[in-house]
Amino acid sequence: MLDRVNEDRGLLLAILTVSDRSARGERADLTGPELKNFVTQRGGEVVAMAIVSDEKEAIRQKLIEWCDGQDSPEIILTTGGTGLSPRDVTPEATLEVIEKEVPGLAEAMRAESLKKTPMAMLSRAVGGVRKQTLIINLPGSVRGALENLEAVWPALGHAVEILRQKISDCQQSVHSHFKDKT
Amino acid sequence: MLDRVNEDRGLLLAILTVSDRSARGERADLTGPELKNFVTQRGGEVVAMAIVSDEKEAIRQKLIEWCDGQDSPEIILTTGGTGLSPRDVTPEATLEVIEKEVPGLAEAMRAESLKKTPMAMLSRAVGGVRKQTLIINLPGSVRGALENLEAVWPALGHAVEILRQKISDCQQSVHSHFKDKT
Amino acid sequence: MLDRVNEDRGLLLAILTVSDRSARGERADLTGPELKNFVTQRGGEVVAMAIVSDEKEAIRQKLIEWCDGQDSPEIILTTGGTGLSPRDVTPEATLEVIEKEVPGLAEAMRAESLKKTPMAMLSRAVGGVRKQTLIINLPGSVRGALENLEAVWPALGHAVEILRQKISDCQQSVHSHFKDKT
Repeated sequence: MLDRVNEDRGLLLAILTVSDRSARGERADLTGPELKNFVTQRGGEVVAMAIVSDEKEAIRQKLIEWCDGQDSPEIILTTGGTGLSPRDVTPEATLEVIEKEVPGLAEAMRAESLKKTPMAMLSRAVGGVRKQTLIINLPGSVRGALENLEAVWPALGHAVEILRQKISDCQQSVHSHFKDKT
Repeated sequence: MLDRVNEDRGLLLAILTVSDRSARGERADLTGPELKNFVTQRGGEVVAMAIVSDEKEAIRQKLIEWCDGQDSPEIILTTGGTGLSPRDVTPEATLEVIEKEVPGLAEAMRAESLKKTPMAMLSRAVGGVRKQTLIINLPGSVRGALENLEAVWPALGHAVEILRQKISDCQQSVHSHFKDKT
Repeated sequence: MLDRVNEDRGLLLAILTVSDRSARGERADLTGPELKNFVTQRGGEVVAMAIVSDEKEAIRQKLIEWCDGQDSPEIILTTGGTGLSPRDVTPEATLEVIEKEVPGLAEAMRAESLKKTPMAMLSRAVGGVRKQTLIINLPGSVRGALENLEAVWPALGHAVEILRQKISDCQQSVHSHFKDKT
């Protein structure tokens, strides 16, 4: 497990592109690299990237592999497979591997995107936690993915601090840092 | 299955009124006909209407019959049974028949209605997909049902195009039309 | 069951504080008493208060005891355990005991809090009904709990009237009072 104690560094993320075409090499993955740019420009580090097809089992396996490994990323961003097409199964795969859902992440992403397009209400993205990793589904389009990531970005640092137990007690203040979990 | 290729026509909807009283003939169904007006004024066609009592099994059976039939409607609107009364079971019946939930539809409806009344937060409406049909729960009141339908209407044409595979690829553009799903 | 007929009185609530530290007596429960003040200032009555540790089984048992008892409170407010920490399990405990989820309550609380802090999207609070009692999760912090309760308060009187069957028919008007459930 990555240790944040005595370190002042950015978030550690992994990016999973879910796309039949990109997995087969028929189309370049545009969104994954754009998400990486977004993250690194804000001081974060992308520790892993992968592309899988729109198969629930392939998505599940990659999410589990990353979350359960020794150096698990703090956050996994998925892109693609959140819509209404029969092949869109990223939310279902995610719901099967997370232990806790964090519905406010998806609500905030949709509410923000809804200011720009009514199509935002069709994104079935979910967010949740497996072990110490936060998983967030993003749409497949470059624009949609970046817009949605921007909407939740301000909350991610705090989310990771809690997940990695750098803050354990929110009752007194969300900004206080306590290392002892009671 | 209805074919949209080479056709420029409106959406094909079915309307299911869920009400003990209307099912027993004790009260006229006001909301169903108002929804039909709304749809036809916007170029859509109502291909089926029915009234069932607030029984989960009756609701489930009708939804399955419509979704799984040969000429399934593109969208089913239900009205009624979304509240907190012990007899309100439309969301539970819907959740049992859909294969994919589309939470953004219900979020958008509640957020819009919340601008008018705090009671909007009590609607337990859900939206989701069974086979190639999108099911959307609306409240029982005429005003609530029309308000909610108006909130989601701008996204429904695109939703149906994806569900019926007229657009299969959202990564390049939500407005591009590709007939080959990869 | 409490009878509201021929009575003009405020809501009857119970407050459950979920906190390891407070349950062990290591820290005073600040949020529970503040919630009680909020309720009594608005004419409501707090009929029970309790503190349990962040254990799913302890939370479940107390919720069931209160909801299933003869003089069940009309509303149970929980405070604490809604975050991302490994010990935060209040939403999971609540989901296991409710018969109907009311997602709009949590959506409205998060949307309102989101106007003040992006951390609001991390609250995993849920709301729902068990028998004739509405259960609402609130965050553990005094400020967060009061903000969230204020966001849903305007809808709670109506929610209880429906749950306790003083209004059974919302189709004609949400303000009409019918005692006969059809």
